[in-house]
Amino acid sequence: MHARPLHGLRVLELGQIYNGPYCGLLLAQQGADVIKVEPPGGEILRRHETSAPGGSYSFLMLNADKRGVTLDLKSKRGHALFLDLVEHADVVLENFREDVLESLGLTWEILSARNPRLVLASGRGYRSGSPYRRLAAMDFTVQAISGHMAITGFPDHPPVKAGATLADMFGAVHLFGAILLALRERDQTGRGQPVEVAMLDAMFPSLLAYASPYLETGVDPGRVGNRHSVPGSAPYGAFPSADGGWVTIMCVTDGQWAKFCDLCGDERLADDASLRSAPARGARRDWIDSCVAEWTRQRPRDELLRLLEDRGIPSAPVRSLAEALDDPYNVDQGLLRPITIEGRGTVQTIGSPIQLRASQEGTGSGSAPPRPPPRLGEHNREVWGGLLGLDDETLATLVADGVL
Amino acid sequence: MHARPLHGLRVLELGQIYNGPYCGLLLAQQGADVIKVEPPGGEILRRHETSAPGGSYSFLMLNADKRGVTLDLKSKRGHALFLDLVEHADVVLENFREDVLESLGLTWEILSARNPRLVLASGRGYRSGSPYRRLAAMDFTVQAISGHMAITGFPDHPPVKAGATLADMFGAVHLFGAILLALRERDQTGRGQPVEVAMLDAMFPSLLAYASPYLETGVDPGRVGNRHSVPGSAPYGAFPSADGGWVTIMCVTDGQWAKFCDLCGDERLADDASLRSAPARGARRDWIDSCVAEWTRQRPRDELLRLLEDRGIPSAPVRSLAEALDDPYNVDQGLLRPITIEGRGTVQTIGSPIQLRASQEGTGSGSAPPRPPPRLGEHNREVWGGLLGLDDETLATLVADGVL
Repeated sequence: MHARPLHGLRVLELGQIYNGPYCGLLLAQQGADVIKVEPPGGEILRRHETSAPGGSYSFLMLNADKRGVTLDLKSKRGHALFLDLVEHADVVLENFREDVLESLGLTWEILSARNPRLVLASGRGYRSGSPYRRLAAMDFTVQAISGHMAITGFPDHPPVKAGATLADMFGAVHLFGAILLALRERDQTGRGQPVEVAMLDAMFPSLLAYASPYLETGVDPGRVGNRHSVPGSAPYGAFPSADGGWVTIMCVTDGQWAKFCDLCGDERLADDASLRSAPARGARRDWIDSCVAEWTRQRPRDELLRLLEDRGIPSAPVRSLAEALDDPYNVDQGLLRPITIEGRGTVQTIGSPIQLRASQEGTGSGSAPPRPPPRLGEHNREVWGGLLGLDDETLATLVADGVL
Repeated sequence: MHARPLHGLRVLELGQIYNGPYCGLLLAQQGADVIKVEPPGGEILRRHETSAPGGSYSFLMLNADKRGVTLDLKSKRGHALFLDLVEHADVVLENFREDVLESLGLTWEILSARNPRLVLASGRGYRSGSPYRRLAAMDFTVQAISGHMAITGFPDHPPVKAGATLADMFGAVHLFGAILLALRERDQTGRGQPVEVAMLDAMFPSLLAYASPYLETGVDPGRVGNRHSVPGSAPYGAFPSADGGWVTIMCVTDGQWAKFCDLCGDERLADDASLRSAPARGARRDWIDSCVAEWTRQRPRDELLRLLEDRGIPSAPVRSLAEALDDPYNVDQGLLRPITIEGRGTVQTIGSPIQLRASQEGTGSGSAPPRPPPRLGEHNREVWGGLLGLDDETLATLVADGVL
């Protein structure tokens, strides 16, 4: 089998909840040996409102393909053991708050003194050294402060968060890129470095469709529901179907509009030559969208989609989450990777969206199943014994003392 | 000055709108020579509803630090010139639909025959080879089909898109990672490969907070407004302030709850011992949230935030987009990088969320301003002349013939 691109790299993951662990998962899926270092009780997400074998379902989804050890970083012995392990690592990945990392005595200065080739990758809520660095950050609070909630939802309803934990995940994927960049530099210089991505910062590029009109005109577009942030064309929105569903329809080009007029047969639209340019349609979007909804209300969702897709008009069903998750596409494409957990049954773990041809056998649906997420401390003996040479008696003492 | 990590790499960007260009921007910001190859009329986003110098504001935000040439890939001569340029490139980055790339005669087989070291990076809406591969995909339609709109918004209101173009941007950042992985493999094998990230696939991990309860229980949480996807604790939500604003407040731990009770002084909350565990609070979240809103309605937003932050209770203002964008944090941290465009004034371009210490001088606020986005065809002479040796007469003929 082809060696995966990160084969031979070792990552110590001090990740918790979503941000650090998703970054660690991306690394593990590319062949890195990711050792998840959890406090003796397990990381927060593992323990989250559950006593089921293996931990919470979301923990299981995010932590396949990793090894796992326990360690009390707050204890003197635990701190020393971690620094010993750092000598065997290429990357330390963490998403504590800046002052927590400092209080643990695990700053860049201390870590790099033990291993100058190390890359320290930090996922933060807010940039370290910035005025917000002391604030507790969660996906929800970052969505709020970033301006994202204010541009999500309908203008006559309150601001609302996205269902996606996009602040956590945008931070995680940018951090994955940052680690690869630092490893590339290390290939040239022989030295590691600290890299950081703040969730607030990583949200920023995704606000572009609303940020650009604001920065250009000084007018805040606010919430526009399912419309485009600026009135560029019409139709553009989610339209109700006869069977209680919704269909998104966008006519961005004049060609798409002509095809749509032909399809829906509404003479008010087809015969009005003034509507044949996008800006003119944008200026009358209220009325156009109401005509479109009249048409969509007469047909079931899937018939509408077939008609629209046949003509190449950009459209999609507003699928429920259940419908989207039950789609065989997910397992076929390796986005959901079922594994069996003892005492638990089948759990769907997250596959990587990244498709490399050379490594396809490692991620596609026909490939071997992922290694199950580690049980709490599952690899203590393998790691502490194998890498640091601690014998079983020492390990037993460390467990008894609450260090592991 | 320190060489940036991608110094010496050349990328031919056939990007359009947001997905490809944001990936190209991430590469350019790390030192790659990104040559944007546009059709003779400019890419769609440049031309988008504007005749202002340089193109649309969103185009300018996404395309700093790149060079730009024009080329009609549909012409025979243009196709041949592109393949000549491929011999001088490390990466071709594109976000066409799969069948468009085929119809242009720019498949992996054709490109790699000219340059076996090439990495072909493809941003797609849906995975190539999948049942959805022929569908037109935009951020909005992918939000719909992914299930994301169905979990965004309030339960008694219609499904709604996120303001963030998260499908475009998640696809772009994962693709950035994919390119770095393929370059790492090339360092070892000497050979390039095609890599691909579909926007639908890249949305998937971000749905975790809702996907995990559905996959575990079979119950679709649907839309929950600003609440948590499962009733884990309370308060958790956005609460109105006396001055018409909103504050997000989360008490996840029992310690945070005790601090909150102490702060708000509501005896109904403080004196009820049954509320001291998170699951019990989750079970009574309607009532708790209404008590919390009674308290927040009596105070202006910024006073609430000061009180909550002083006690370490996770909270944040729901800032308007204007408020978030006007925050000096953005320019100070290099997230917005002002440049001057002739005939246009100052434009804010997007900085990278990725912070590498070794390259900090290249991305922080104290650093040199970015190279302005290329004017249409600005580097035709530099690139076609400098790399392929075409003389001015030939270039003039190509322009006259509509090839450039």
